[in-house]
Amino acid sequence: MTAEITKIADALHNSPFMRACRREDVPFTPVWLMRQAGRYMPEYRAVRASMDFLELCKTPSMAAEVTVTAAERLGVDAAIIFADILLIIEPMGLALEFSKGEGPVIHNPVRTAADVERLREVEEIAALQFVFDAIRETRRALRPNLPLIGFAGAPFTLASYIVEGGASKNYVHTKSLMYNDSGAWHAMMSLISRALIKYLNAQIDEGAQAVQLFDSWVGSLSPDDYRQYVLPHTRSVIAGTKPGVPVLHFGTGTASLLELMREAGGDVIGVDWRVRLDEAWKRVGHDVAVMGNLDPVALFANQDHLRAQARSILQQADGRPGHIFNLGHGILPETPVENVIALVDMVHEMSQES
Amino acid sequence: MTAEITKIADALHNSPFMRACRREDVPFTPVWLMRQAGRYMPEYRAVRASMDFLELCKTPSMAAEVTVTAAERLGVDAAIIFADILLIIEPMGLALEFSKGEGPVIHNPVRTAADVERLREVEEIAALQFVFDAIRETRRALRPNLPLIGFAGAPFTLASYIVEGGASKNYVHTKSLMYNDSGAWHAMMSLISRALIKYLNAQIDEGAQAVQLFDSWVGSLSPDDYRQYVLPHTRSVIAGTKPGVPVLHFGTGTASLLELMREAGGDVIGVDWRVRLDEAWKRVGHDVAVMGNLDPVALFANQDHLRAQARSILQQADGRPGHIFNLGHGILPETPVENVIALVDMVHEMSQES
Repeated sequence: MTAEITKIADALHNSPFMRACRREDVPFTPVWLMRQAGRYMPEYRAVRASMDFLELCKTPSMAAEVTVTAAERLGVDAAIIFADILLIIEPMGLALEFSKGEGPVIHNPVRTAADVERLREVEEIAALQFVFDAIRETRRALRPNLPLIGFAGAPFTLASYIVEGGASKNYVHTKSLMYNDSGAWHAMMSLISRALIKYLNAQIDEGAQAVQLFDSWVGSLSPDDYRQYVLPHTRSVIAGTKPGVPVLHFGTGTASLLELMREAGGDVIGVDWRVRLDEAWKRVGHDVAVMGNLDPVALFANQDHLRAQARSILQQADGRPGHIFNLGHGILPETPVENVIALVDMVHEMSQES
Repeated sequence: MTAEITKIADALHNSPFMRACRREDVPFTPVWLMRQAGRYMPEYRAVRASMDFLELCKTPSMAAEVTVTAAERLGVDAAIIFADILLIIEPMGLALEFSKGEGPVIHNPVRTAADVERLREVEEIAALQFVFDAIRETRRALRPNLPLIGFAGAPFTLASYIVEGGASKNYVHTKSLMYNDSGAWHAMMSLISRALIKYLNAQIDEGAQAVQLFDSWVGSLSPDDYRQYVLPHTRSVIAGTKPGVPVLHFGTGTASLLELMREAGGDVIGVDWRVRLDEAWKRVGHDVAVMGNLDPVALFANQDHLRAQARSILQQADGRPGHIFNLGHGILPETPVENVIALVDMVHEMSQES
């Protein structure tokens, strides 16, 4: 490495976000926000006016642009590559579409063992080259000491879309397959997991400093079902990512799954607002970092209230190294931009007090 | 009281369901199922073919018929009056409609302090006479020793519909009002709570042996928000119901709210499948009864799997008096009837083993 490259690598390695992932001391609590590049932001809406969601995901220069713009506009401590958790299912042979207003639709959902048989093993990850190109372009455009997070959907959350054919309220098809043909279920989860390992490692190779696994819908499961049908697969994905690169393991509605998520792995456990951060951290153990956990709707409150809510979370973290501030889920479309910007400032400012 | 009436009152008082509410010994674990009279049942669909949902709620003879038919068909240990949690909001001046496929719509939702001002105090509960008539007719038609449960929506869940104007995913309007005008919020919650006390007590007067408070959407709140914005109101409702009549206090997604729900009150705390029953019972305390907590989707599994799931819940209850078996939420529309019937039998049979 040249001296210049070494210097950049050092700066990244010692950025507050990366230090917090490793539970090292930080000058202030690092903060980033899930879905920080999204519809609440005028710059993002302007880009989307000229191209649809999937097209944006597949145009590296534009994906890089919205990623960098959001990080710079907000002053957050990490960028996250603009992409979608469902991109990985296309090379499995699933017909994905984002219909207006309805969200993702999969035209050939998996319902039976025969459907599972038809899923394609993702041998080559090159089908997602546009994601890797976006990561490379983003890395080039980003402030050199700002970490870039790669990501993927966790096996259960991906499986739920694949089986339901889209978003779901009760996960009837998903759980029916799980309960009634556990062989087919585990085969599907294994196939997904193998693809995820390749996908995450390729993101790391292309320049992501950390990766997040989104298990957004795992809170629909009982702890026993999670342990039996999900945990081994999530564990294999996390165990399969390149060592030395922090894994953030996130879910919502996980108040009774936290210990099991910890068991599955991750350097940072993401928690939502339904559980207090101090209680969540105690339960997952202080030997792991945590991320969270402001209710995204708190961003609709007046700034006094918002400040009080953010302060409460910082107080619960108690200055312990290993807290990354975030929301408990993604920023909602109608969120006032000025409150998002204010929140980032508040976290920086309040975490330096005392 | 005549001897006959005394005998009936005794039989009701000593029915397994009522004994379990008081944590007394029972010959087998009593079971009933939320939404046991619902679309999954052909008899119910036949009735609904001739009248819409709200019409059915407002026709006492038919509401009684679907209530009794469901209880008899399933062999459950309690009936629950057929009604809807939103009926109580009409006398508050809210324009309620059940649109096909979309669920409830409130045409004049409450968004501001001025809207709260316009809400009507429910002075007389007679506007809901059809519910009381249905209870009286049901009580007459029901096996004399089978308890009848009255019910209402809890203050938060009702408020969320009133403010959002229907079902919601993120409760943005509800929480915005809560955070930005807590005076208006508490005024609305108090008005709702006063109406609920009258409503529940009238149901008791007309023949309900127990009442359930459904706080179905309370799991969207952080524990601190629950404590500040909800707990005092739910507590006032429960404290205001007639003594000696068990109150069942139910919510979903409440894994981190259980202690606070207990604090708010209730003789029986209802829990969903997202938390293990043994853990939930330990947390609310063994000096209160619990109800739950099978995942409604378990009814889509083959009967071997269903049996194993039901058995696990009974084992977690560990034969301790004060367990009422139920689902963690209502029966889903596509549920196979034969599995629902089988489940009731399984619970009766397995809880008499050993």
